[in-house]
Amino acid sequence: MELARIQEALREERLDGWLLYTFGRSNPVALEVLGLSGLHLTRRLAYLIPREGEPTLLCHAIEESLLPPLPGRRRTYHTWEGFLTGLREALEGARRVALEYVPGGAIPYLSRVDGGTLDLLRGLGLEAASSWPLLLLFQTWGEEKLQSHRRAASGLVVAKELALSFLREHPEATEKAVQGVLVRVLEERGLVFDHPPMVAFGENAANPHHAPTERPLREGDVVLLDLWAKEAGGVYADITWMAEYRAKEAAHKAFHQVVAAREAALRFVAEAYQKGRYPKGFEVDRVAHQLLLEGGYGGYIRHRTGHNLGEEVHGSGPHLDDLETHDFRPLVPGLAFTVEPGLYLETFGVRTEVNVYLHPTGPEVTTPKQAALTPL
Amino acid sequence: MELARIQEALREERLDGWLLYTFGRSNPVALEVLGLSGLHLTRRLAYLIPREGEPTLLCHAIEESLLPPLPGRRRTYHTWEGFLTGLREALEGARRVALEYVPGGAIPYLSRVDGGTLDLLRGLGLEAASSWPLLLLFQTWGEEKLQSHRRAASGLVVAKELALSFLREHPEATEKAVQGVLVRVLEERGLVFDHPPMVAFGENAANPHHAPTERPLREGDVVLLDLWAKEAGGVYADITWMAEYRAKEAAHKAFHQVVAAREAALRFVAEAYQKGRYPKGFEVDRVAHQLLLEGGYGGYIRHRTGHNLGEEVHGSGPHLDDLETHDFRPLVPGLAFTVEPGLYLETFGVRTEVNVYLHPTGPEVTTPKQAALTPL
Repeated sequence: MELARIQEALREERLDGWLLYTFGRSNPVALEVLGLSGLHLTRRLAYLIPREGEPTLLCHAIEESLLPPLPGRRRTYHTWEGFLTGLREALEGARRVALEYVPGGAIPYLSRVDGGTLDLLRGLGLEAASSWPLLLLFQTWGEEKLQSHRRAASGLVVAKELALSFLREHPEATEKAVQGVLVRVLEERGLVFDHPPMVAFGENAANPHHAPTERPLREGDVVLLDLWAKEAGGVYADITWMAEYRAKEAAHKAFHQVVAAREAALRFVAEAYQKGRYPKGFEVDRVAHQLLLEGGYGGYIRHRTGHNLGEEVHGSGPHLDDLETHDFRPLVPGLAFTVEPGLYLETFGVRTEVNVYLHPTGPEVTTPKQAALTPL
Repeated sequence: MELARIQEALREERLDGWLLYTFGRSNPVALEVLGLSGLHLTRRLAYLIPREGEPTLLCHAIEESLLPPLPGRRRTYHTWEGFLTGLREALEGARRVALEYVPGGAIPYLSRVDGGTLDLLRGLGLEAASSWPLLLLFQTWGEEKLQSHRRAASGLVVAKELALSFLREHPEATEKAVQGVLVRVLEERGLVFDHPPMVAFGENAANPHHAPTERPLREGDVVLLDLWAKEAGGVYADITWMAEYRAKEAAHKAFHQVVAAREAALRFVAEAYQKGRYPKGFEVDRVAHQLLLEGGYGGYIRHRTGHNLGEEVHGSGPHLDDLETHDFRPLVPGLAFTVEPGLYLETFGVRTEVNVYLHPTGPEVTTPKQAALTPL
């Protein structure tokens, strides 16, 4: 943990401290910041980073031996009174404190401290501020993560190519068989993933959350492959690629529209950087959304334009989202995200998905940009 | 879901409704109540049960197809504005609403709605009440669960007997080898568990969270076996059993003290029922704690006296706890819990653990009560 950088950010944001609080796994954001995500914790744990001086870790005595070293003092409790006393003492003199709190729960990923604990802290005279500006420090990637992401992205591209070859050789293959090919290729390359890839044929592609079945490929189908993976300990890449087996014109037309939406979103980000400003997550979503609306596809949008990438495929950083949430966070250099507009019609669906990494000079698209449905 | 019983409880508690709200898996209590624990949900979901009339489910359009039927209306949203509108309309006319909220987070298991969402609800003019009285309806067991628990308990008893026989035949066996025996026996009986059993020899028993190692048994050791399991879809049983291999007198003495604490706790519960009142979780903890203090063991207590049993080994119902939390909930008929006082000294630890089911007439101890360390 880069304490100096966090304390600098605390001073910039005029915060007296950052209270990372979790009950067991209730606050995955705090666990990730503290590097405790893999631990089997079941008690209350608090870690206060003050704007100056040493942090304080307050943990249950029974869990102390599980915890890796963290900067600062370590204080254990084994009673609820001990927890409250420890918390009060750590917060002594603080007034404005960052928490995993977002007013109105507007970004629910980051609004993790429970209402009872929030009331407790306010009862101690504290003002709760949102920790999102501090979290950006952890959501940005350095060179090492970017390289790991690029290697994961290469693995995905090979996997989709081999899956398409397999489909050409086995034109009656099932969704599950194609999924099997993707899984095998990713695993052979040492990549890991939380859930196996998605494969959807024809009308199944109309469901953005489809799970592969024994349905075979048929003439007239679109083929949607959505795959995501990372190196162990690395950060994710996540692409969607689409093919078609003599699909009707409507599918080609809809695909061109999502491509146009993707390009408009990418252009918007690049232009904002050229103008010296950081675009906000919700703004990019609106740009892509607008393109789809203009094409007459307003009724077929089911999800936001993109999500942050991190050690989880849906990272905790800014998403391209004004649909599911109003993500007001800025897309600062070092962040990575997907751009994946999709349309879900009655009898088929289309999506294109690329990954973007933000350099200080502007966006780099780290995965291939599909221009048209790949014929089988 | 027994809607009529919940609505009756809402009227008794003078509540206008119960808002079960979760963001993905953020509120495991609500997911369990709604029977959605096994689903891969990632969006905001709300289910309002009004004191009269039909409930309303508000879920993301992308997740609708994943959800099983639930009583009442179903309304989908796919924008954040749609979620807010749906929430406002479902709550129209309500003033006092139960949530997974506990003032001060005093029972963190049940304080699950995030502070941002709590602020949002208060901003709509609602008063947040704690849902714990309603949750008791789900935490109590009927005859079927009790029978399943008893079968699980029988499996645990057989497993510990076979593990002790194994240790007698292999007096230099390691902790991991004994754990292997326990796992095998439990699995052969078709029982499942979240984590494999704990086995601790000698000084390792001084750590209440020990994970089995390659340490072999040695003369002078205590042996602590802690095992928990259930039938698939059933409720847990959870016992601790201790043996000794020529252990010193101090271990026998400490063990007698935890036995005395266990018996005092059991007596307290039985006597409360005889007097026609339901003891509270924290009261039972205090009784056992007091016994350990009186024996001069005050410095060696590391955990509460017991936990609720349910489909999770640490259920969400009332715990015997005034140590880690102040559990003010009443131990009403139909609840089940462990009674497991423990002492953790420098060079060894002792614990005895039984399970209790509460009949309307009083407690039944469903597992064997160990009176002294079993000699090897």
